[in-house]
Amino acid sequence: MLRVKPRARVVLHDAKAADTHGWHKRGAEDALEHNKKRLEQLQYTLYAEGVESLLVVLQAMDTAGKDSTIRNVMTAFNPQGCTVHAFKVPNDAERQYDYLWRAHLRVPPRGSIAVFNRSYYEDVLVVRVEKLVGATIWKRRYRHINEFERLLTDCNTRIVKICLHISKDEQKERLEARLEDPAKHWKWDAADLEKRKQWRDYMQAYEAMLARCSTAHAPWYVVPSDRKWFRNFAVSQILVHELESLSPQLPASSVDPEHYRIF
Amino acid sequence: MLRVKPRARVVLHDAKAADTHGWHKRGAEDALEHNKKRLEQLQYTLYAEGVESLLVVLQAMDTAGKDSTIRNVMTAFNPQGCTVHAFKVPNDAERQYDYLWRAHLRVPPRGSIAVFNRSYYEDVLVVRVEKLVGATIWKRRYRHINEFERLLTDCNTRIVKICLHISKDEQKERLEARLEDPAKHWKWDAADLEKRKQWRDYMQAYEAMLARCSTAHAPWYVVPSDRKWFRNFAVSQILVHELESLSPQLPASSVDPEHYRIF
Repeated sequence: MLRVKPRARVVLHDAKAADTHGWHKRGAEDALEHNKKRLEQLQYTLYAEGVESLLVVLQAMDTAGKDSTIRNVMTAFNPQGCTVHAFKVPNDAERQYDYLWRAHLRVPPRGSIAVFNRSYYEDVLVVRVEKLVGATIWKRRYRHINEFERLLTDCNTRIVKICLHISKDEQKERLEARLEDPAKHWKWDAADLEKRKQWRDYMQAYEAMLARCSTAHAPWYVVPSDRKWFRNFAVSQILVHELESLSPQLPASSVDPEHYRIF
Repeated sequence: MLRVKPRARVVLHDAKAADTHGWHKRGAEDALEHNKKRLEQLQYTLYAEGVESLLVVLQAMDTAGKDSTIRNVMTAFNPQGCTVHAFKVPNDAERQYDYLWRAHLRVPPRGSIAVFNRSYYEDVLVVRVEKLVGATIWKRRYRHINEFERLLTDCNTRIVKICLHISKDEQKERLEARLEDPAKHWKWDAADLEKRKQWRDYMQAYEAMLARCSTAHAPWYVVPSDRKWFRNFAVSQILVHELESLSPQLPASSVDPEHYRIF
């Protein structure tokens, strides 16, 4: 239900960000714990099988909870077999290559999970809104990205893209909470306020990204994230669903335990 | 004239492999020396400018002269700014990723040249002929490759793909020469004889590659290579042509030499 159909036109209304799809906090929290156990098992089997891999792409406005989702949900995964990569502004070395180069380097090997905390989608989001390159350049990136994801999908990587959707009001509260709590000051970045001023432009860029890049092979999910408990539960549910559909299996083994005696 | 037009049907006749397009040995050798000086200058400017890059892909049957072309032509380039990568059978680590991963890692950074001695095209050549994967898998690779090359081209990399074309008779002579000369025994690989037996299948795979992957943005060149002197000259000519069309320029500088006194 949160999955964006290919070519669907999604409007990121503020009102939708608080949607909980009939769930209540207590039930969602229980379901999250249950899902995390299931994720642990699924990852174990994925790793043992060593055939397919999972790439999770997280995108969101500031404070929507990318870090928090990783801390609350991805902790289900054994870090042996799960790497998180936070994509920052490209550094000098990275800028010497095409913008997908640094992402391709870090895709998950067989049996593993990679989480991209931000990703190459910034190249059609912040880059578009801040006009860091001309329109002819960012416009052709949708195709590059879809074809890059097709390659990965064809080569045994399941791609799950999750857009955490918060409302502008909720962002205001979270930014204020950051200012009020000295333990959160390290997260404060005045640049976030500039991006907040361009809220409408960002929503437009996100909507274009969802319309252009939610494909049959690599769908986008939009997760209402004003309620943290719903966000965490929904992300865990999506991951369980996607990993189960890969149906990883322990490798067949011909070990005959009767054959060995261990001294 | 050696450039394959998009969607053109090329037949790799043995007879064409000895073509010299009206050139004679002496003239071609002089032209090669001249071209190498020009390549040196062009690379210097490309490097100084640091904006665009050049990717040279070399494919050929055994003994056609990939190594030899690199030794005779690419030596024009300063190795600071030119890397050659020989793609062998994928190793264990490489096999954990999609087949373009190891190639993407090694594309040239801005201002540089990369030469691929064999490449991801093996994934639609030897892999197809040896049936290492099923037809549904190798067939979709043409699209992956074209789109990968589109990405690189859109992001400032000029791609030049050169197929060295020798005849089956010429290969026989060269293989015999390898056996006769102890200094060449290290190059001897009995597996080459197996590939020679599948000559027709290989030609078919090469022809499909040329038809499917010679694109406006990343053309294939077929270079008749029975005459080594023609092959070297032709490759140098192609490289001069492609680098000149990039028209690299020394960066504008505002240094006023009058302003400095060096003690």
